[in-house]
Amino acid sequence: MHILITGAAGMIGRKLTARLVIDRALGDQPIEKLTLIDIVAPARPAGFSDHVKTRAADLAAPGVAAKAISERPEVIFHLAGVVSAEAETDFDKGYRVNLDGTRALLEAIRAAGYGYQPKVVFTSSIAVFGAPFPDAIPDDFHLTPLTSYGTQKAICELLLADYTRRGILEGVGIRLPSIVVRPGKPNKAASGFFSGIIREPLAGEAALLPVADSVRHWHASPRSAVGFLLHAAGLTRAQLGDRINLTMPGVCCTVGEQIAALRRIAGDKVAGRIKRAPDELVERIVAGWPRRFDARRGLALGFQVEATFDDIIRVHIDDELGGRIAS
Amino acid sequence: MHILITGAAGMIGRKLTARLVIDRALGDQPIEKLTLIDIVAPARPAGFSDHVKTRAADLAAPGVAAKAISERPEVIFHLAGVVSAEAETDFDKGYRVNLDGTRALLEAIRAAGYGYQPKVVFTSSIAVFGAPFPDAIPDDFHLTPLTSYGTQKAICELLLADYTRRGILEGVGIRLPSIVVRPGKPNKAASGFFSGIIREPLAGEAALLPVADSVRHWHASPRSAVGFLLHAAGLTRAQLGDRINLTMPGVCCTVGEQIAALRRIAGDKVAGRIKRAPDELVERIVAGWPRRFDARRGLALGFQVEATFDDIIRVHIDDELGGRIAS
Repeated sequence: MHILITGAAGMIGRKLTARLVIDRALGDQPIEKLTLIDIVAPARPAGFSDHVKTRAADLAAPGVAAKAISERPEVIFHLAGVVSAEAETDFDKGYRVNLDGTRALLEAIRAAGYGYQPKVVFTSSIAVFGAPFPDAIPDDFHLTPLTSYGTQKAICELLLADYTRRGILEGVGIRLPSIVVRPGKPNKAASGFFSGIIREPLAGEAALLPVADSVRHWHASPRSAVGFLLHAAGLTRAQLGDRINLTMPGVCCTVGEQIAALRRIAGDKVAGRIKRAPDELVERIVAGWPRRFDARRGLALGFQVEATFDDIIRVHIDDELGGRIAS
Repeated sequence: MHILITGAAGMIGRKLTARLVIDRALGDQPIEKLTLIDIVAPARPAGFSDHVKTRAADLAAPGVAAKAISERPEVIFHLAGVVSAEAETDFDKGYRVNLDGTRALLEAIRAAGYGYQPKVVFTSSIAVFGAPFPDAIPDDFHLTPLTSYGTQKAICELLLADYTRRGILEGVGIRLPSIVVRPGKPNKAASGFFSGIIREPLAGEAALLPVADSVRHWHASPRSAVGFLLHAAGLTRAQLGDRINLTMPGVCCTVGEQIAALRRIAGDKVAGRIKRAPDELVERIVAGWPRRFDARRGLALGFQVEATFDDIIRVHIDDELGGRIAS
């Protein structure tokens, strides 16, 4: 099997690649070839055969998408995209990368023709939803995004469904919860603090909390995100029907509950490294985000996520810290 | 006030133009100028001053959208589009006209800049919804179109909302019910029979009914469609909030009820001109269409529609037949 990953140099892309290299198979199909593309060249995964191609390329640029699918990968994980904050500050770049890049990929698949009908797993986001919300957002709730990023994701969901309905490809869109704990340096995303208040204290550093303890949000670990992608790739057209875009299950909790979980797992000293630093702008942005879903369909289709925020913290300690916490 | 109408040569475009020429005002603003564009040159309306421009132009072609808004119309009625059946049979044309054409218009407005922020009234469609449905579709039901036309309309709704949120324009999308009774010749649309079974018998001709009497659908008259457009143009940003795309109210009834209404108004002889001719393909297409809406928000915002299907038939007799029925 030949697998193409776009956005392979990103956090989820790297973890997905690492997992595929370990598994050497997707479902019951051995992986013979991996093509990894991103706007910066993805790292070549260690411990895999030489059937790996890595390439720095912008899908929205002419000819790039056609080249990316010229060897007819059977499965495409389409993760490439500009993040929320950048899509909001740079209107043109957001639409070019997130919308035109995706459309170029879908069009390249259509142009390939001759019975080529790859599985396309697309990472959408709960940013396709915009306040006001019911207490728990049902699977049939409308998409009224309040960011350009969410708009672009929602449009790509619609395109993916239409190309699937027409038999051009077999698409499945998965709306990722807010992924925590993101490893690495703090980033500029408004949601960055959700990872920061766990990651920094566990690494012996202070972290700023810009919102109230009562703020509630919807989370999953990076390990679950990879699990969602792999599970989505295995779903059949019959299982999915026409509604191929799915809200992923997650853990609903408040910031206060997250801090309590950190305290349970790592103690008072670690939890004490979180400093309250209210930021009105972040508060306002976060107020427009979804808090809780009734992700019935995703669960019925077998997607799995952590049961508690404690589990999410433990995944971070296991996968990123080798099981160790800075005391 | 300068008003631009795209798709001005279409049925709704012609009726909207005629109404504006009679009113000579939109809300409390006198109309000084009308620009009418379509892929075929719209007819010059009789009885209006010389401040009318008509032009044959394809919005998706380079430079056309920029030229269309170069004189900065304050209000744009964006009706242009390829109809459902054509968007389904011609994939490229549907996406080019319905998606790229709309995007070109929005981008031209953005590029104009310098405080230009026109009102843009966009005709969406209940084709943005796809079965299965609840008994009455609520305003917050998700968009899962089952046609490329519905997909393109849903994408344009999302774009319009994002451009509005960013202050580039003041958009409002109105999801038109199935408009009956369409005047003129029968067309190839799968929904054509809804008009045909009223229009042909009233004109003394036979009409074929391809579906069962139990088929239920959502309707409004052409006169109501024009009323929706004018009312939408008068709504303020404060009234609309962020959710600028609205399901229009309609009349929910079965084909059997429509025939009964025709019989009440025009008698047995006229109603007897409807011939049952079941068509499995049409039955299947219509089965995926919405039947009933709980269009609460549209009603609360003051949109008005006929109370009964009898009223819809009377509008046709008044507006198209000069009040006369062929016996």
